[in-house]
Amino acid sequence: MSEIAQTPEPPYYAVIFTSIRTEEDNGYAEMATQMVNLASNQPGFLGIESAREGVGITVSYWTDLDSINGWKQNSEHLIAQQKGKDQWYKQFKTRICKVERDNSFLK
Amino acid sequence: MSEIAQTPEPPYYAVIFTSIRTEEDNGYAEMATQMVNLASNQPGFLGIESAREGVGITVSYWTDLDSINGWKQNSEHLIAQQKGKDQWYKQFKTRICKVERDNSFLK
Repeated sequence: MSEIAQTPEPPYYAVIFTSIRTEEDNGYAEMATQMVNLASNQPGFLGIESAREGVGITVSYWTDLDSINGWKQNSEHLIAQQKGKDQWYKQFKTRICKVERDNSFLK
Repeated sequence: MSEIAQTPEPPYYAVIFTSIRTEEDNGYAEMATQMVNLASNQPGFLGIESAREGVGITVSYWTDLDSINGWKQNSEHLIAQQKGKDQWYKQFKTRICKVERDNSFLK
């Protein structure tokens, strides 16, 4: 995921997920990888970007709000969300956004 | 910036800036810190979140599009933007978004 997501012309949607982790590991990395694979196969998925440095920021991109809702309700994702609250995250914030404009630079 | 930004009730705006750095340092860290301080004093600034791990993701939050435009045109920021293209970034993408909903979790 160390790449800039190749998204289409706006408008499309973004989910900004910002988090602070607990000390607990307990399968976190495996679950994170599994969730990226699972999200990538959801209808309406456009791309994902992720970095952690103190705070973790994961931005996933979607064609529309229905696709975001479909991903939120995915049964394996629901289990991961619960484990996240129980074990992995001290704190998080999810923001649902409409991307209205974008601008790219490539050297 | 290792914190989740405390933003007001939506709607508000987000600028997602995703980047890949060059190898060149040449004052990058100092400029990055200076730009966060400068942005924080701009009208309409609401908060900022940032992490780099291969890819860098910085999300800044703003009350409205005029505030984002004001920041984009800030004279010191214009100089930093030019140095970014000349020296610091191999690639970047800026996405301007309207935050429509959010959801918080705190243990």
